Amino acid sequence: MAEPRVATVRPVPEESATGKVAEIFADIKATKKLSFVPAFWRVLATNPDHLELVWTRLKTLMHPEAVGRTSRLDPLTREIIALAVSATNGCAYCTSSHTAAVRKLGLDVEALGEVLAIVGLFNSTNALADGYQIEPDVLPPLD
Amino acid sequence: MAEPRVATVRPVPEESATGKVAEIFADIKATKKLSFVPAFWRVLATNPDHLELVWTRLKTLMHPEAVGRTSRLDPLTREIIALAVSATNGCAYCTSSHTAAVRKLGLDVEALGEVLAIVGLFNSTNALADGYQIEPDVLPPLD
Amino acid sequence: MAEPRVATVRPVPEESATGKVAEIFADIKATKKLSFVPAFWRVLATNPDHLELVWTRLKTLMHPEAVGRTSRLDPLTREIIALAVSATNGCAYCTSSHTAAVRKLGLDVEALGEVLAIVGLFNSTNALADGYQIEPDVLPPLD
Amino acid sequence: MAEPRVATVRPVPEESATGKVAEIFADIKATKKLSFVPAFWRVLATNPDHLELVWTRLKTLMHPEAVGRTSRLDPLTREIIALAVSATNGCAYCTSSHTAAVRKLGLDVEALGEVLAIVGLFNSTNALADGYQIEPDVLPPLD
Amino acid sequence: MAEPRVATVRPVPEESATGKVAEIFADIKATKKLSFVPAFWRVLATNPDHLELVWTRLKTLMHPEAVGRTSRLDPLTREIIALAVSATNGCAYCTSSHTAAVRKLGLDVEALGEVLAIVGLFNSTNALADGYQIEPDVLPPLD
Amino acid sequence: MAEPRVATVRPVPEESATGKVAEIFADIKATKKLSFVPAFWRVLATNPDHLELVWTRLKTLMHPEAVGRTSRLDPLTREIIALAVSATNGCAYCTSSHTAAVRKLGLDVEALGEVLAIVGLFNSTNALADGYQIEPDVLPPLD
Repeated sequence: MAEPRVATVRPVPEESATGKVAEIFADIKATKKLSFVPAFWRVLATNPDHLELVWTRLKTLMHPEAVGRTSRLDPLTREIIALAVSATNGCAYCTSSHTAAVRKLGLDVEALGEVLAIVGLFNSTNALADGYQIEPDVLPPLD
Repeated sequence: MAEPRVATVRPVPEESATGKVAEIFADIKATKKLSFVPAFWRVLATNPDHLELVWTRLKTLMHPEAVGRTSRLDPLTREIIALAVSATNGCAYCTSSHTAAVRKLGLDVEALGEVLAIVGLFNSTNALADGYQIEPDVLPPLD
Repeated sequence: MAEPRVATVRPVPEESATGKVAEIFADIKATKKLSFVPAFWRVLATNPDHLELVWTRLKTLMHPEAVGRTSRLDPLTREIIALAVSATNGCAYCTSSHTAAVRKLGLDVEALGEVLAIVGLFNSTNALADGYQIEPDVLPPLD
Repeated sequence: MAEPRVATVRPVPEESATGKVAEIFADIKATKKLSFVPAFWRVLATNPDHLELVWTRLKTLMHPEAVGRTSRLDPLTREIIALAVSATNGCAYCTSSHTAAVRKLGLDVEALGEVLAIVGLFNSTNALADGYQIEPDVLPPLD
Repeated sequence: MAEPRVATVRPVPEESATGKVAEIFADIKATKKLSFVPAFWRVLATNPDHLELVWTRLKTLMHPEAVGRTSRLDPLTREIIALAVSATNGCAYCTSSHTAAVRKLGLDVEALGEVLAIVGLFNSTNALADGYQIEPDVLPPLD
Repeated sequence: MAEPRVATVRPVPEESATGKVAEIFADIKATKKLSFVPAFWRVLATNPDHLELVWTRLKTLMHPEAVGRTSRLDPLTREIIALAVSATNGCAYCTSSHTAAVRKLGLDVEALGEVLAIVGLFNSTNALADGYQIEPDVLPPLD
């Protein structure tokens, strides 16, 4: 019987992190108010420069208050976008993680169902529009 | 020189619609407060049963007030989900149409940039999580 | 060691279903001639309105005789389309379930191989046509 | 104003083909009963070995009678699979070309609508199954 | 508790292969210098013609020296392309297998991180270009 | 007749850029040795913070020498990855732009055909591995 699927690289254990990686791990836990560093970040840490690039970008976009930015979108809307993208791409890790995040931000199971219903609907209409190669409507010029 | 890409079927012109198709066309314009029937619906009308199925579903999910439902999500959030899915799938018709919808609901160009920045970010992290085959974090049991 | 991946919500057990959900569960088993309600439907049941929308649409398209419709496609062709879409999207649950369905409708393992060979071929040519950005052939006007 | 999108390489004109490419072009027209070589093949011809590989595979799977094979699927079902894959991937060139092929094989516009309705439905359920990370049903062992 | 996901068909065991299948299995092990036949090929073997088609194509493109071809790309670059495609599609089996291949060809964990960083980056910019429906730049004519 | 598809926002003209946007535009032209700012960057400039985030990341990964980094991959390999991802996603703008880049770095049309042949091959095997839900081979433990 085959092994269950595993990460293709060994995640960096929190306790063995040093230097830049240790700092970023601490920042992730503080910014996201987590008691552990999720596997995603511990895998990226196998290339510290890449860890830094992805964390900087995600922190800026998803935790704007932590970098002194003001966002036009509220935190739940931002996580809903993350979930919609992840469900559309069928990314298991990401779907699990962003579902946990929207739940933590107050979305109950029935409302989660509404989000996914809309995700499902537009994956359907996307296939229809592409399947019929529908020409764009003539819209008013851009302002 | 090749022709520009065109719909693979001839959309049903509004003025030639009769019966169920004409009723749905009228409902689309009234519900969506539009002066014309978008090409998407006029193409689906080549199979009237299918037009009805898709419109019923979209009306229920995206125009809940029109069917006496209460939605847990506001109209802008619903359209943002539609745009996130369409950009992720690269559906040209749908992206154009849902961008027009979020603009009409008040999202300005800079805030649109924030939505797409988040869409871009998570298409990136999805590829990373899949590219590393990252194992799910052990999350607390479902409530 | 991480837990195996699990549904992000708790499926509604058949025996705890009431009202509209219980009715739909019974209809699914009767229409699909199944002795149990698949997890897909029990998860959707966490939002009963969504369950109803998806079941109504799937029943209409995939079990037309149950709603008095006549389909132009035979049941095996309809399930082959479902499998082709699911394999292309890499949806594990759906691929398993539609493979079971085509097998039940008489497709043996070798013929399943032919279906997937064609699915594989066109995922390849799609990437080639997009990778070369090939312009459409000038086709005769639509009739 | 930007140019319309064009192939990223110059397709090989039919009249300038020689040797292996000319032979394959002739075989494509004879096998597919076409009066011209579609752009897809003329672009692949910029790498003659690749042209040969793709044509051999496509001819074997889609024109089995031409290579003395017997297919378990009829020609229309084979083209429907091609269309389902192409619409799911949103490949413009391929969607146009396979729509033309199913029309030529007798599928009228309304039946095309039924095919695409099913394609749309399962793109939707795929996103739902992935969005909820639904665990597979326990199915009977493989025979 | 549901079973872990399994192949939807029973892979052909190496020891039960005969005729064309046994020959191809031997060729796979010799060409790829492997001590076993990977599950991918043993599953394809349920349709021997399909096994032959896929192996011939993969051998030609990925092991050109075995068929007397000269490739313009080195073996590591070819496997990196395979990994980039597999991560983008989120194919678990393929990602695992091509990661093993690039590691065997000398890419260490940090350089793997660089490959995936670039894969992640362009999955992001792809979603942005599609999400904004950006018009192509006017490029100089093809040579 | 419908308009050809256009960007959903108005790109920022080079001559109207000021402050941070003007600086980044200058850096893009200098780093990429271009005489104009591609539409991609002029569209992102509608949200200057986003422009900065994407450019910083792309510059770091694709132009490492410009930020004092050493890359383990050569420039052509990096662009080939970008093209493989873009062709797989079917992103028209990106495919055109990365094809231009690999050509500029010396890949001729026949070698481009080899890259795309491999991209096509693995889009095919990905669909097969997912379509059969093939279980991972038992690989040796990670080092």
